[in-house]
Amino acid sequence: MRRGAIIAVAGAGEADAPVLAAAEDLGARLAEAGYVVLTGGLGGVMEAASRGARSKLGATIGILPGADPEEANGWVELAIPTGMGEQRNAVVVAAARALVAVGRGYGTLSEIALALRAGRPVVGLGTWEIEGVEQAADTADAVARIAAHVPAG
Amino acid sequence: MRRGAIIAVAGAGEADAPVLAAAEDLGARLAEAGYVVLTGGLGGVMEAASRGARSKLGATIGILPGADPEEANGWVELAIPTGMGEQRNAVVVAAARALVAVGRGYGTLSEIALALRAGRPVVGLGTWEIEGVEQAADTADAVARIAAHVPAG
Amino acid sequence: MRRGAIIAVAGAGEADAPVLAAAEDLGARLAEAGYVVLTGGLGGVMEAASRGARSKLGATIGILPGADPEEANGWVELAIPTGMGEQRNAVVVAAARALVAVGRGYGTLSEIALALRAGRPVVGLGTWEIEGVEQAADTADAVARIAAHVPAG
Amino acid sequence: MRRGAIIAVAGAGEADAPVLAAAEDLGARLAEAGYVVLTGGLGGVMEAASRGARSKLGATIGILPGADPEEANGWVELAIPTGMGEQRNAVVVAAARALVAVGRGYGTLSEIALALRAGRPVVGLGTWEIEGVEQAADTADAVARIAAHVPAG
Repeated sequence: MRRGAIIAVAGAGEADAPVLAAAEDLGARLAEAGYVVLTGGLGGVMEAASRGARSKLGATIGILPGADPEEANGWVELAIPTGMGEQRNAVVVAAARALVAVGRGYGTLSEIALALRAGRPVVGLGTWEIEGVEQAADTADAVARIAAHVPAG
Repeated sequence: MRRGAIIAVAGAGEADAPVLAAAEDLGARLAEAGYVVLTGGLGGVMEAASRGARSKLGATIGILPGADPEEANGWVELAIPTGMGEQRNAVVVAAARALVAVGRGYGTLSEIALALRAGRPVVGLGTWEIEGVEQAADTADAVARIAAHVPAG
Repeated sequence: MRRGAIIAVAGAGEADAPVLAAAEDLGARLAEAGYVVLTGGLGGVMEAASRGARSKLGATIGILPGADPEEANGWVELAIPTGMGEQRNAVVVAAARALVAVGRGYGTLSEIALALRAGRPVVGLGTWEIEGVEQAADTADAVARIAAHVPAG
Repeated sequence: MRRGAIIAVAGAGEADAPVLAAAEDLGARLAEAGYVVLTGGLGGVMEAASRGARSKLGATIGILPGADPEEANGWVELAIPTGMGEQRNAVVVAAARALVAVGRGYGTLSEIALALRAGRPVVGLGTWEIEGVEQAADTADAVARIAAHVPAG
């Protein structure tokens, strides 16, 4: 297992093609920079970010809402089922050193709020305009902003 | 114990005097309308809303972050310690039929997001401008908006 | 809402007639003694204890695994959905001043263990033989043992 | 990150030398067999099992009660803070395919109960005598019993 700071990527289980493409590129860039990519382990943005990270041989973790590790998408190396339902979002946030929020969605908004409340850096890519979120211009900028807060490890 | 639909009032543990006055008036109006007022059980907006509800002999519940029921403010009739820390916000949201968000704060934002994600009505009083939140003009309007969604029971 | 110390009654969702009869009698005696009866809100022992408490006009609370208050049995005055699944057992334990465990079952065993770990008094009625559990001879003895630890309030 | 079925090792944060030696040997044997060793990430049995696994270059995960990854003992490769307090035990159980319970303690008993309730195999080493727990004669027997239920993958 390669060590590295854990960065959470939050995003919806269903998303448009441009959002998915951004998530995949983000995952790839985070992995190249040496980060472990943590998601909620399911589809959409979560799957795209995990696939991107794996394409660069990065480590990927999925913290799942259900109790079955097989629910994880195929790009999650380490699947952690919680049986907590949507409340697993709080574990995703707690487990990461920083959060990148991709796209809009209420689940993503809850992760933004929980992360800001916990004082963790939050970088946004086409996400909610919330005070405290650093809005990134693109995926490269997002990773640069993460790196300014959290060394890769 | 008087039955009645449970309405959550979300707000920060510290707030300015006008926000606290609004919270207290909101609690009183909710109780008069027959609702049970549920909060996170601590100070600030939570305490003001509970005090308002009790001033009209309304029922009040506090779902606490810690494990000690004595943490509850004095206006909480039924204190439910959870030992879950800030994750008790998810229980507050799940336990209520609808949410009134008072003021700004990241904890309040997380409760808004969790409630919207769960499809529950959310009414705002001087709170975050989030799509899906019904912004009320004042406390009377807030209770009227709640009543349009949830009968007092 | 009548105040009173909250006592949790733990037991399985399905049980034999003698166990259910004991649970109902226990609920009635707890209510007569002035306690609020807290359960997991579903059937079996939980329903029997709640029905017993209501037969003496006692207050009853149910902390539910799901997100729908309608899941509660009809004897629960105050239903608190958590959306946490079986992990709501930890909230049941945290919310009560003491626990009475009725019958055997792994869910009941987990509540015994969580309560003992938290230092709360645990009284048993035909339950697991675990060091730290006070085994009661009958329902009257169970309530007497609870009263020795927790005044009704 | 090496893939492998995740096996949880449950045990107290403080334990006698023979218990700690057994936990370390158990961790080493699980790692040699190809399992990922998951613990609560703190001291005592958790630390000993993690150290044993690392001595064989095995993968180790710690699911922490607090919010700070630095709380983990030094043998945890992947630290997952939850901020859930003792309720993180439920995540430990949910995340593992099977559980080995080492020694006695109420926290360990709660993990046994949660695992049995979830239908997961539970193997015991000098632990509570609970129906459904397979009591192992020694650490080699414990790993053999785990392997009979869960292939290392």
